[in-house]
Amino acid sequence: MHDTGLLSPVRAGTPIERLVSDSAWIDAMVDVELALSRAQARLGMVPAQATQDIAKAVRTYTFDPRRLAVASRGAANPVVAFVAELTSAVAAIDEGSANYVHRGCTSQDVLDTATMVIAERAVGAIVADLDRVLDSLARLARAHRNTPVAGRTLAMHAVPTTFGAKVATWMHGIFDARDRLRAVELPVQLGGAAGTFASYVECASSADNESPGVIYTKLTDEFAAELGMAAPKAPWHTVRTPIADLASAIAITSGALGKFATDVISQSRNEIQEVLEPAADGRGESSAMPQKRNPVLSAMIRSAALQVPALTATVFGAMLAEDERPAGAWHAEWQPFRECLLLVGGAATTAAELAAGLSADTDRMRSNLELTGGQIVSERLAMRLTPLLGKTATKKTLQAAAFEAAQTHRLLADILAEDAGVRTHLDSDEIAELLRPENYLGATSELVDRALLRL
Amino acid sequence: MHDTGLLSPVRAGTPIERLVSDSAWIDAMVDVELALSRAQARLGMVPAQATQDIAKAVRTYTFDPRRLAVASRGAANPVVAFVAELTSAVAAIDEGSANYVHRGCTSQDVLDTATMVIAERAVGAIVADLDRVLDSLARLARAHRNTPVAGRTLAMHAVPTTFGAKVATWMHGIFDARDRLRAVELPVQLGGAAGTFASYVECASSADNESPGVIYTKLTDEFAAELGMAAPKAPWHTVRTPIADLASAIAITSGALGKFATDVISQSRNEIQEVLEPAADGRGESSAMPQKRNPVLSAMIRSAALQVPALTATVFGAMLAEDERPAGAWHAEWQPFRECLLLVGGAATTAAELAAGLSADTDRMRSNLELTGGQIVSERLAMRLTPLLGKTATKKTLQAAAFEAAQTHRLLADILAEDAGVRTHLDSDEIAELLRPENYLGATSELVDRALLRL
Amino acid sequence: MHDTGLLSPVRAGTPIERLVSDSAWIDAMVDVELALSRAQARLGMVPAQATQDIAKAVRTYTFDPRRLAVASRGAANPVVAFVAELTSAVAAIDEGSANYVHRGCTSQDVLDTATMVIAERAVGAIVADLDRVLDSLARLARAHRNTPVAGRTLAMHAVPTTFGAKVATWMHGIFDARDRLRAVELPVQLGGAAGTFASYVECASSADNESPGVIYTKLTDEFAAELGMAAPKAPWHTVRTPIADLASAIAITSGALGKFATDVISQSRNEIQEVLEPAADGRGESSAMPQKRNPVLSAMIRSAALQVPALTATVFGAMLAEDERPAGAWHAEWQPFRECLLLVGGAATTAAELAAGLSADTDRMRSNLELTGGQIVSERLAMRLTPLLGKTATKKTLQAAAFEAAQTHRLLADILAEDAGVRTHLDSDEIAELLRPENYLGATSELVDRALLRL
Amino acid sequence: MHDTGLLSPVRAGTPIERLVSDSAWIDAMVDVELALSRAQARLGMVPAQATQDIAKAVRTYTFDPRRLAVASRGAANPVVAFVAELTSAVAAIDEGSANYVHRGCTSQDVLDTATMVIAERAVGAIVADLDRVLDSLARLARAHRNTPVAGRTLAMHAVPTTFGAKVATWMHGIFDARDRLRAVELPVQLGGAAGTFASYVECASSADNESPGVIYTKLTDEFAAELGMAAPKAPWHTVRTPIADLASAIAITSGALGKFATDVISQSRNEIQEVLEPAADGRGESSAMPQKRNPVLSAMIRSAALQVPALTATVFGAMLAEDERPAGAWHAEWQPFRECLLLVGGAATTAAELAAGLSADTDRMRSNLELTGGQIVSERLAMRLTPLLGKTATKKTLQAAAFEAAQTHRLLADILAEDAGVRTHLDSDEIAELLRPENYLGATSELVDRALLRL
Repeated sequence: MHDTGLLSPVRAGTPIERLVSDSAWIDAMVDVELALSRAQARLGMVPAQATQDIAKAVRTYTFDPRRLAVASRGAANPVVAFVAELTSAVAAIDEGSANYVHRGCTSQDVLDTATMVIAERAVGAIVADLDRVLDSLARLARAHRNTPVAGRTLAMHAVPTTFGAKVATWMHGIFDARDRLRAVELPVQLGGAAGTFASYVECASSADNESPGVIYTKLTDEFAAELGMAAPKAPWHTVRTPIADLASAIAITSGALGKFATDVISQSRNEIQEVLEPAADGRGESSAMPQKRNPVLSAMIRSAALQVPALTATVFGAMLAEDERPAGAWHAEWQPFRECLLLVGGAATTAAELAAGLSADTDRMRSNLELTGGQIVSERLAMRLTPLLGKTATKKTLQAAAFEAAQTHRLLADILAEDAGVRTHLDSDEIAELLRPENYLGATSELVDRALLRL
Repeated sequence: MHDTGLLSPVRAGTPIERLVSDSAWIDAMVDVELALSRAQARLGMVPAQATQDIAKAVRTYTFDPRRLAVASRGAANPVVAFVAELTSAVAAIDEGSANYVHRGCTSQDVLDTATMVIAERAVGAIVADLDRVLDSLARLARAHRNTPVAGRTLAMHAVPTTFGAKVATWMHGIFDARDRLRAVELPVQLGGAAGTFASYVECASSADNESPGVIYTKLTDEFAAELGMAAPKAPWHTVRTPIADLASAIAITSGALGKFATDVISQSRNEIQEVLEPAADGRGESSAMPQKRNPVLSAMIRSAALQVPALTATVFGAMLAEDERPAGAWHAEWQPFRECLLLVGGAATTAAELAAGLSADTDRMRSNLELTGGQIVSERLAMRLTPLLGKTATKKTLQAAAFEAAQTHRLLADILAEDAGVRTHLDSDEIAELLRPENYLGATSELVDRALLRL
Repeated sequence: MHDTGLLSPVRAGTPIERLVSDSAWIDAMVDVELALSRAQARLGMVPAQATQDIAKAVRTYTFDPRRLAVASRGAANPVVAFVAELTSAVAAIDEGSANYVHRGCTSQDVLDTATMVIAERAVGAIVADLDRVLDSLARLARAHRNTPVAGRTLAMHAVPTTFGAKVATWMHGIFDARDRLRAVELPVQLGGAAGTFASYVECASSADNESPGVIYTKLTDEFAAELGMAAPKAPWHTVRTPIADLASAIAITSGALGKFATDVISQSRNEIQEVLEPAADGRGESSAMPQKRNPVLSAMIRSAALQVPALTATVFGAMLAEDERPAGAWHAEWQPFRECLLLVGGAATTAAELAAGLSADTDRMRSNLELTGGQIVSERLAMRLTPLLGKTATKKTLQAAAFEAAQTHRLLADILAEDAGVRTHLDSDEIAELLRPENYLGATSELVDRALLRL
Repeated sequence: MHDTGLLSPVRAGTPIERLVSDSAWIDAMVDVELALSRAQARLGMVPAQATQDIAKAVRTYTFDPRRLAVASRGAANPVVAFVAELTSAVAAIDEGSANYVHRGCTSQDVLDTATMVIAERAVGAIVADLDRVLDSLARLARAHRNTPVAGRTLAMHAVPTTFGAKVATWMHGIFDARDRLRAVELPVQLGGAAGTFASYVECASSADNESPGVIYTKLTDEFAAELGMAAPKAPWHTVRTPIADLASAIAITSGALGKFATDVISQSRNEIQEVLEPAADGRGESSAMPQKRNPVLSAMIRSAALQVPALTATVFGAMLAEDERPAGAWHAEWQPFRECLLLVGGAATTAAELAAGLSADTDRMRSNLELTGGQIVSERLAMRLTPLLGKTATKKTLQAAAFEAAQTHRLLADILAEDAGVRTHLDSDEIAELLRPENYLGATSELVDRALLRL
């Protein structure tokens, strides 16, 4: 058992594993060969009987992924061995039909189209999980639209924000990712040995007298329609935009989910403890420490987000595909691309679970917010005092007061109320009012609305 | 002199250097502060006089990039030092106006918006260069629509194609890249210290009684309009989609140009020599070998394409931005992002030069195509014979003939004409006709048209 | 079946798959738990009976990798579920002994040590394959010590070299890789929950009165000795040098093998055809083109070499391990690290096969070398003429002659013999002699010797 | 001004900038040409006068980096233009001597050797900074050998550790990095146009009758000695081990420093605040928030650590150097390699500053440790009770107690003292004693000693 998910818990047992497994790839290759044969039959390029025999063969024949995998070393890709088996299976039904298996086709047409078929299914599953994440986060954002929480920059308290706005930020990232995933075009691949379509034209030449251009368009359209996929502008054997573009949308999804998880981890720390991952039997346990309740869902999502960017780089690098098919670059793309789908698929499922059960501790949010005795709102005082005292004096006054507050653990409001310069303009009630976090939440409510509007 | 381009010839002296230089960043930061002030003045958030004084100050004040760079260590970003200098410059005109410099603003609003301003200009320049590349390639594709050349897969002769179709393939990749670059949204950044907009609302509160949401929308729209940029859906301090999406479009551009260059390098080899880079005084020279005419333009483009993917990975990784502003991830994004623009900008300019002067040696294309005595068209024979002899017998016959042709350097047609099985179905003239490369070019003409249609 | 190798032919069916499979990891975790228990028993920390019962349990109990993988989501690592099963298995033998399973231990001690155990085996297998590669290459280098071949730089003929020197270059890279692999230290991991060793000291405290420091040293040494591994200087839960250092040695190995493969691909091109990959039934076949004999071994090795660098980057990135165990970074390291071993293990096995059967076509080497009519030796003329004619005049003369030779396909020697300036110093026989490639091979023989000396 | 450090504060104004600047590269190229000429003169390969004239020329001639950078586009590397200028400068002194400039040499010999010269200086500076970091950390480790602090795993309190042990962990990583940096071999490069040494042998042939092998050894040794560098086993034009190995040592250094910085950031959070970065005028300030004291040194170090791994991947990828010099891969290596040195050089200098002034707040360490009312020591209870109550019962008891403690904010000791099962074995004083963090520090003192021993 080579890879059962033991070293990749983020996707172990999640639905994406089945969708992008070697078995799925073989199934997709079967779908592709059948779709090609049907399209060719419809255009009179292969006998209808051959197509039916292929369909019959694949209904009963079982491909052994491992056997094909090992055999793939012969051609440096699995298609040659796959086609040999498929041909034999059809030949067992009818020798003549076997001659029309993979007719005019090349390994790359099959493997690339199968990859697109799988990608479409995987993207569908990922988008569905993102929808679940977004629904759950929308509930949280609505519930905590006005829950003040410390805004933090460079790890330090900055100004107040709301937990709703934090959730809305996660949502915007995930909406962007969903938009990008949906925008990617996933066309079939059909070009023949060197992308010239000559072999398909050759099939057709006995059938009719249409121009190669017409044959190209017709067969590609039929083939795509058969699979329910898009037709490309041209064969893309060495124009890897579909793969690279999906990889980048996947990387953006990974980043959006990773941002969510990273924040949950930060806010889960014992000293902060503003959020709590959903409990489940045995989840978050340690092998040694009974008190432990680790943010394991987030840790898994984050682990995926740390792996995906580099995999994407390899996919981008594979665009340097020399000639009409490269000796290595194409082959280097398959596994990293699949791993991207796998990791982000697992992360999306995990994020759906995390979002559905994430709980917020508003008491801790409040007490953390008050930790610095009002300093977190000092920007507001700066805004108010600058036109009155001047920028330099204001900064000096407030930095000194903040320093004193930090040293003495007194409230910033009390210290400022003793400052003659400040007192000239603001009385102690006004200062206290200005330093109340819930009075300095800006447009956070609007930002929540804007996220909810994208649902 | 730290980096004058000595170690990065692909962009040394090209226009992109100026567009993304430190000086350009400072100019863009000036534009951003001024645009913000104007937008605020229009909404009554700062006095009109302050805005005028800022405009006056930046007309005469000179920022020293190096001084700001060194000072940037104080805050881990250059904006704090930049604002301090700008404030002083305005104070020298009017102390009161200085209080309204960078009013309500945060470092990230300035730096991110400046980055977008620069990105837009850089993308504009890159797209213009891609247009030049495409125009030149279109000429080549038209001229060589029917020029046969060996199609090569895994480094070996596969089936014939045309040089026009090869050029069309380069074009499709570059069109895809252009489409992706144009699709990227580059919004301004405006959120205040923790993305809540509270500080901007605070500025406004003395001015009018509009809701924070209205203030958010108005100020963001005015600010964006002032810069001629798009307004975002929300502050994106820690939602790095614009950066990540542009980085991926840049990586796709890099890959498309790198594919072009890689093919030129392959086809330039002495043993192949089907294309020649444009000559220029001193270009392609060696320090040792007088006969050398190296494909240096392609080598430079390829060098960029080998560097960009990893840089993109760092940009994707920076999406894991904790809290309301991360301590390191944001900071890790700037230089790799700029380097991406720089490399691809240089590569695009270099590619424009390469495409404009690339020459094709059709004699060598022809002689290379004939190198294997017709084997390069053996697929066609396989297509024709398979329904007649069966898949297995056809493959066996043709492999044996190809092997014999390779060993004896005889023409494949002659060997096949001696094969009894083949002779049953095809006479020697038919075989010779089927094995003529120019008769097996498939839909290459259509593929050229499809590329030209995207112009 | 998730991953049977279908998308990674470079390692499908090669021995490395078994060595780094999930099953191997579980076996290694068993070895680790047993080794710990034995070491503890020897120091009186656990009852000898418990150790024997653990040994008895693992002899018969079968862990199901998939079940553990799915269960690993509970703790974000597989060890907690593994220990639960192991404890049950021991409890089935003796309840009391079960209390001493994983005694004082933490998940990371088990997983990291298991990783090191696996790494050592994998490195052993890789080094053995490198030895095989080197033996085969040594034969080639000896056989072709004096076989002239075109030296090529930036894709163009540069000066002559020998095929032996080319092979020696491959060897030096592989020797360097082997040196690096051997230099990596692979220590056990033993630290307890937060790397303080407190839990192990706690076990010991009932047993004796030794100081924690002594206990640390003794138990770590015993544990390491039990596994035949090295003892670390300290627990390295968040000091990932062993992993990062091995990953970099693996990347260097990958690069060395990839260089070899890349050269074989270049030299395999139909137009060059100086080397030929070993034949095997069905190897290098295309699904469409009967004449094809693709360099598939090289393409697979190259595909691995294109994937490894980015995986290494993820491993390096995982060094940013916060606190005493990170929430994601550790988890992000496992799969890419395993993938590195897998790819390079497969590449090394493939390279052994490639090197063993690689054949050189000395006729083609000779004819390619003569392709430019002597231009490839023009550096030598430059060397000879420069002191006589001056640098500028020499360069001008030789460039003009090279240009004429390229245009007219005449021999460079003949053109130069007509040059008055050259004739002053060299007669036509001398020119011809100086331009013979086999007279300008420099120290290539020495470079072969230096490679052979490293065997 | 292209790059003054504005977007890379981690190194802006630090000494590494000068060491790896374009100017430094030119200086190193001058050193290399001079060293080669001196070595050649000593072996009678060039006239002594020529060497003296070269030395004289470089004393007065000023190379303009920008001019060379722009000119580098002609050859895709800066050496050809550099040599042309150097030759002119020497010719201005003596025409004849100019003929011996760069005699027998190739661009790559100069650039690679210059890179090694620069690398050696950069590594020296980095190691010196690491030494400063280690000295400062050693003081901290000694001072806080017995300061208890919460050990944290997956962001949650795990078991107690000491601040000294935390510091020792940072030290071990940095010691490992220093060891790796010191172990890297940085040889000169000397091979001539295609690494055959033929051109150098040609120089020598007029001088004496030594064999090419002897000439290779002598000239390489003299050249290396002249520069105070190591001689290589063979030319390494396309065997990039020295570059790749140094890049990996740099990446490991980056990771070690990044780990340190990441921990400082975590421990700086307002809610944790166990450490404080050294204060300096203006450091850590925000452009908006007066109270801010950001951990900017750590953020800068972390920003470098986030960038380096991907750059290393590009360097590893450049090992796929085809033929005798690649068309792009070599060129892709220079800038990322320099950027690695630059980032880690800056990070090391920054870390020296951080370590020298880092202060520890032992009160906060204590209060954080007590935050969970003793739960952080519950592992110890588990260790003690397991043999008494059995593993399952112990876990159940302690998890329930921990849950109750968390809900009620009572001390874990008090809750456990009420548990009948526990009371059978331990009285409340014993429980309280077992749950005192300072009694469960394991071998932390030993781990500090082991770090100090590596100084």
